[in-house]
Amino acid sequence: MSEIALLVFGVDPPPRLDRIAGRARIVLSDEASLPRLLPAADALLVWDFTSDAVRAAWPGGGPRPGWVHTASAGVDRLLCPELVASSTVVTNARGVFEQPIAEYVAGLVIAMAKDFPGTWELQRQRRWQHRETMRLTGTRALVVGSGPIGRAITRTLTALGVRAELVGRTERADDPEFGRVHGAAALPGLLPEADWVVCAAPLTEDTRAMFDAAAFARMKPEGHFINVGRGPLVVEEDLVDAVLARSIAGAALDVFESEPLPSGSRVWDVPGLLVSPHMSGDTVGWRDDLAEQFMDNFERWVAGEPLLNVVDKKLGYVPVT
Amino acid sequence: MSEIALLVFGVDPPPRLDRIAGRARIVLSDEASLPRLLPAADALLVWDFTSDAVRAAWPGGGPRPGWVHTASAGVDRLLCPELVASSTVVTNARGVFEQPIAEYVAGLVIAMAKDFPGTWELQRQRRWQHRETMRLTGTRALVVGSGPIGRAITRTLTALGVRAELVGRTERADDPEFGRVHGAAALPGLLPEADWVVCAAPLTEDTRAMFDAAAFARMKPEGHFINVGRGPLVVEEDLVDAVLARSIAGAALDVFESEPLPSGSRVWDVPGLLVSPHMSGDTVGWRDDLAEQFMDNFERWVAGEPLLNVVDKKLGYVPVT
Repeated sequence: MSEIALLVFGVDPPPRLDRIAGRARIVLSDEASLPRLLPAADALLVWDFTSDAVRAAWPGGGPRPGWVHTASAGVDRLLCPELVASSTVVTNARGVFEQPIAEYVAGLVIAMAKDFPGTWELQRQRRWQHRETMRLTGTRALVVGSGPIGRAITRTLTALGVRAELVGRTERADDPEFGRVHGAAALPGLLPEADWVVCAAPLTEDTRAMFDAAAFARMKPEGHFINVGRGPLVVEEDLVDAVLARSIAGAALDVFESEPLPSGSRVWDVPGLLVSPHMSGDTVGWRDDLAEQFMDNFERWVAGEPLLNVVDKKLGYVPVT
Repeated sequence: MSEIALLVFGVDPPPRLDRIAGRARIVLSDEASLPRLLPAADALLVWDFTSDAVRAAWPGGGPRPGWVHTASAGVDRLLCPELVASSTVVTNARGVFEQPIAEYVAGLVIAMAKDFPGTWELQRQRRWQHRETMRLTGTRALVVGSGPIGRAITRTLTALGVRAELVGRTERADDPEFGRVHGAAALPGLLPEADWVVCAAPLTEDTRAMFDAAAFARMKPEGHFINVGRGPLVVEEDLVDAVLARSIAGAALDVFESEPLPSGSRVWDVPGLLVSPHMSGDTVGWRDDLAEQFMDNFERWVAGEPLLNVVDKKLGYVPVT
């Protein structure tokens, strides 16, 4: 096999690709050089997955890499019609983010149940103000998104005594781990009962803006909403209105329609709405884990073995087998 | 049986004792009337368990109630030498607080691992600042206190993927749930390895001030300390010094040497030290649960059946069977 041309997109490249260094000619690219370098690449590692540059650069003449790996769980920023229609294989970072995100969501759920934000605000004021808080055990959660991240969240909330149910694209009665998985069509009927609605769905044309004013109106006033999926799954303005009107009890967003969240956005200071900067899955060492995972797949690709985490480009995610 | 004289201590009496109302003459007392009313009581319900009044009123002439029930897990505020030496049976509120406190501790652990306080401070400043956080899975916790609360905490942290170990008064190798329980003598040797040290011990003469400068000095700089037991288990000044010196990474206190924490205390504004007002176990409905639990025991007492949650007055807690 002739030397492999591996194109890496990202101004801040991976910590080390030492394991494959001798077997590939590694070329780094940024947004400006990407369109020019793309036709000569055999494989593309999308290291900076927060950019739309690949989506923008992909259409055009000349050959394209036969394999694209993105160091992210979501592929929504990547998939353009030309890439979907092509024979290029797309793989993702499934496996790295699940457990950290599940921990993060569990923490948010407890923080809201126990009103940690209120307690720490009172601490700042040096005020001793005892309150009764919510008992988690026996509350009900709906986790929307039945991929590995939604599953890890459901598993973790269940371990905390929450009655957590999973909502996927299509209904299943024989899920190996959870038994029943609700279909998306059932969601409106399920929202009124949920204490916690957690969005961990992939962003596709079917899921975009799925959490809008109508959805929040179906939630109960004691309900809380959490988004760790993608920002455009939620109509931010509608969520802000719902929280301000107290038609739901609170919310936490880790992802936003526009990232970084503009400093002028009114999302920043809605009482009862917690903002974090798209970091729920990013634990110390995550970049090393992402690099290792890519190199594992690289070795499979070189050896002609089946790749791990192959995205169904039409669905927009890796189907759970 | 002649009518039972039930004395209830607490200015803010239980929500309803309807179930036993016909079978007892219920007299409410406050700090001033307690010494006078105590000799005539058959049973005493310590509803306001945050006061030292019973401990102060107990010694003295005349008969004393044969049964004292406290609506708390800890009995440290209650037990005076005369009560310990007497034939009076003491029962506590074991069963009500375990799960809520375990949830609270799990929430604090995740909040510190993921730096929720830092994130919400940045939110207040409208600053988008991505950071890497700690992955919980695989970290190590020491839970000090092998009673039901410590056990619930250990169980919950384990469910979150934490390697949690229990420390009790005496070492056991055959604990039915956890296998090995470390003895208190092993604690100094265990502290250096712990990412999380959670104090849920009863306050006795053996445990008072067990977490002092020497203990914090043994912890690693990445370690965090949480106290949901009793304030005097910890030398507050030593903890403040350890956090300020960054000799440990952070701490959370729900209980204090003096409660309410005085507004002038320097504990309020130590960066990295989270303060909550003794509320970790107090979820909505807790007062109803405490009243129900007392009435259950009252019915056993009237029927001459063995009481639940009998405190070993010499040990200072209900031994786990």
